[in-house]
Amino acid sequence: MEQIKRYGMLEISMPRTAQEMDVIPEAVFTLNGERVSVRGFSENENLGRVRFMPMKEGIWQYEMKWGTEKKTGSFECVAAACHGPVRTEDCHFCYDDGTRYIPVGTTCYAWVHQLPEVIEDTIKTLGTAPYNKIRMCIFPKSMPYNQNDPDFYPFERRDNGWDVRKPDPRYWDHLDRCLKALEEMEIEADIILFHPYDRWGFAAMLLEDNLVYLDYAVRRLAAYHHVWWALSNEYEVVFEKKIEDWDAFGEFIAGNDPYHHLISAHNGIVPYPKRTWLTHVSYQGSDPKDAYYLRKEYHLPVIVDELGYEGNIEADWGNLSGFEFMNRVWTVTAFGCYGAHGETFHRDDEVLWWAKGGRLYGQATERMRFLREFLESLPGPMEPFCDDIIRDPNGMAEGHPFLQALLNVNSEQVMQTFLRRWTQPVGIHPDYKLYYLGRSASCRMKLNLPENGDYKVEVIDMWEMTRSMVVSGVHGEILVGLPAKEGIAVLIIRLSGDALNA
Amino acid sequence: MEQIKRYGMLEISMPRTAQEMDVIPEAVFTLNGERVSVRGFSENENLGRVRFMPMKEGIWQYEMKWGTEKKTGSFECVAAACHGPVRTEDCHFCYDDGTRYIPVGTTCYAWVHQLPEVIEDTIKTLGTAPYNKIRMCIFPKSMPYNQNDPDFYPFERRDNGWDVRKPDPRYWDHLDRCLKALEEMEIEADIILFHPYDRWGFAAMLLEDNLVYLDYAVRRLAAYHHVWWALSNEYEVVFEKKIEDWDAFGEFIAGNDPYHHLISAHNGIVPYPKRTWLTHVSYQGSDPKDAYYLRKEYHLPVIVDELGYEGNIEADWGNLSGFEFMNRVWTVTAFGCYGAHGETFHRDDEVLWWAKGGRLYGQATERMRFLREFLESLPGPMEPFCDDIIRDPNGMAEGHPFLQALLNVNSEQVMQTFLRRWTQPVGIHPDYKLYYLGRSASCRMKLNLPENGDYKVEVIDMWEMTRSMVVSGVHGEILVGLPAKEGIAVLIIRLSGDALNA
Repeated sequence: MEQIKRYGMLEISMPRTAQEMDVIPEAVFTLNGERVSVRGFSENENLGRVRFMPMKEGIWQYEMKWGTEKKTGSFECVAAACHGPVRTEDCHFCYDDGTRYIPVGTTCYAWVHQLPEVIEDTIKTLGTAPYNKIRMCIFPKSMPYNQNDPDFYPFERRDNGWDVRKPDPRYWDHLDRCLKALEEMEIEADIILFHPYDRWGFAAMLLEDNLVYLDYAVRRLAAYHHVWWALSNEYEVVFEKKIEDWDAFGEFIAGNDPYHHLISAHNGIVPYPKRTWLTHVSYQGSDPKDAYYLRKEYHLPVIVDELGYEGNIEADWGNLSGFEFMNRVWTVTAFGCYGAHGETFHRDDEVLWWAKGGRLYGQATERMRFLREFLESLPGPMEPFCDDIIRDPNGMAEGHPFLQALLNVNSEQVMQTFLRRWTQPVGIHPDYKLYYLGRSASCRMKLNLPENGDYKVEVIDMWEMTRSMVVSGVHGEILVGLPAKEGIAVLIIRLSGDALNA
Repeated sequence: MEQIKRYGMLEISMPRTAQEMDVIPEAVFTLNGERVSVRGFSENENLGRVRFMPMKEGIWQYEMKWGTEKKTGSFECVAAACHGPVRTEDCHFCYDDGTRYIPVGTTCYAWVHQLPEVIEDTIKTLGTAPYNKIRMCIFPKSMPYNQNDPDFYPFERRDNGWDVRKPDPRYWDHLDRCLKALEEMEIEADIILFHPYDRWGFAAMLLEDNLVYLDYAVRRLAAYHHVWWALSNEYEVVFEKKIEDWDAFGEFIAGNDPYHHLISAHNGIVPYPKRTWLTHVSYQGSDPKDAYYLRKEYHLPVIVDELGYEGNIEADWGNLSGFEFMNRVWTVTAFGCYGAHGETFHRDDEVLWWAKGGRLYGQATERMRFLREFLESLPGPMEPFCDDIIRDPNGMAEGHPFLQALLNVNSEQVMQTFLRRWTQPVGIHPDYKLYYLGRSASCRMKLNLPENGDYKVEVIDMWEMTRSMVVSGVHGEILVGLPAKEGIAVLIIRLSGDALNA
């Protein structure tokens, strides 16, 4: 009997007959009375195919139907080799098997649309890079540094556009190979379904065609455990679509994906409104404090997929120094959110990582690895500490005259502006507390540890990638020395006694 | 005949007699029919004194009165050795004689209250530093790093406080010596009249006593050409005073200072409201963009006297790296405003420049000198270019999809947030245009120069303090190479043809 690992993909197929041309193949999978209905796909080929991701071990039975034809079979689902699809858990993530997932993402929008040698480079680079999620588009991209046409498109052309009912198998088979390469590297594929940077007409398709396309994408791709659905890159910049369209896409996918993969809608300016189908926030914005406020408002995990990219091109979103990029990522991190990577160093050959993949040239990637290892070393995810300025994370609230002055201010707007300005990135967990000090270059810091317990203090230099113990076995009010430079984090670890998130 | 230089100080005096104890000495100065009435002061000494700053050359006559006694005399006002009091001119400054004044200030709040050797150090440091303005308090200061009592206080003590009608001549004579030292170094004395960091009761005096004190300060100090009146340090943090009190102070000084020195009211959080007596904005705020918006709202010169200090102490206002400090100063500068210096490096002897003076240890001072020399090399002050995003200073507006997306946004708040986020520091003048690129690290920049003219482009590295010509004799759209690092400014200079502020 065929064996499929839990969270792996079974593909079953049936030969096509003439009358089944416009009918979608389907299958029902059963295990111990549990029943999963799955729809498949066909192309201009001789096979109807159904893909299935078993979530439970055991002997599964199935019945496949394509029009009037039927086929039955069984397979054994054996122990998993991976952790399964990523789910949300409060404002964080974990895999389906409960293992924690810490997103350390990157972006290569159009990597699948490049020449084979560039794709090979991308896969090689990803193989040694620290990234475990990649944002990538189904449709090719047209904007500065993205002028090349791909070899294949998702659909066959028709007179005035695209025939979404005729997927081009060359494109989708190629996409399958790319997705399998990512799967092998344990990289989540955050698949962007629509985006604005288009000269071929994909952004301007009719709603009905969009739904036909989404239906195909779900039937074909949902059985990959590592797929995420990113409805958009910059939804408001896709001027051909209204919010009702995006909502229709989100509802369609949430209702049709048998595995309930994550669904996001990435913004250009204004965060996508909260919706029941929205599983997390994929945000673009240059101010890391936005992440804190989004998390508070949405009570969903927040990934800042674009807080600016490390690079040196003309555009302000693509010319951050490595330091500034990492500074933003650490800020977002200490707010209990997640920052993602992108790289845009000018090259005459126009192969920039953010769009085409290829190779990485910046200083951020090694720092993202350090951050990932740091986060993995912690006993669990952190929550933002700074709900209000009264709980001043710098220990400066005590006798702080500005605080008192702020309370006398009559303008709600001024109040909000300054509360925001004073909101500091401090993350807490019962067993640890992380202060990220950003561009502050203090030589010392007063810490108010609980009196009842013993604690250890470490100083992290996010840029030099060092982590050093400063003092251990302390409690109460202590003064710790700091290196008086930018990019410093202070980590308090509980050895015993009171929790640090009290 | 006694000769006094224009803008210099004449001091005339009369011996005291018993019945004149509570009467204020006065004098009238006349020149060619012009009449200036001036009030003087006396202390627990044998003299009534009147100080006078002649603004015009010629033979002045005067008549001094103290109670029933009179005295007449004359002096010759000869050519000035300085440029006179600083005035405002639109959103900038010039001296009374029309010479441009570019404020490059620093802060030593309590330097006059320190031990003689520290004061000597301060004067020596100021003698070689680039600063041409200093913020300094009349009253001593009480807060962390400021725990020492001064030798003298401005007034004699009485049972439950201070007898403002009895100034202590030891204090005021000492202050005179300090002011004269500043005058010799051509440093404007931005005298802070009230502040919140007080343990002696100066912040809590009654309104009537405050006005008696201000009256004395004006009568005694106004004849110094280099005096500015700073009503407050952090007006809203002086909880004993209401806005009506501050208004009374401003109106009183504006009505009583014969020379109309500059008057400001420095904030902790909320900018002081616009008033007719307010000559310029002395602002505290960590976001350099505040300066741009204040300038636009007040249409007055804006000096950000506190955008954070270079240093390493615990407080967030006192632990900026030299780079971040200078980054804020250059940002403010390219908005057509002025940023001022302060330094707070922790020292065990607690002699920190920002409060006590002494010596400078940071990296910002040399960069402030470079900035000052740079600004002095320009043909005149700059105005902010970026009135709206449509005039995108980065040349990215053209075909910028975000712009279009922003125009579709219905929320005024979101619109304002993003317009603010996109507001870039670019200063213009007919003969030059200055882009400060801040933390952007671009390798190149597209410039749209006028077609009709010839222009030169220079690249300035504000941190390395270099200024290099990139290209000369160009016009129209050009692409210039940049060093792809933070802290870069691009200066376009008009050689001929169309003005750059068109």
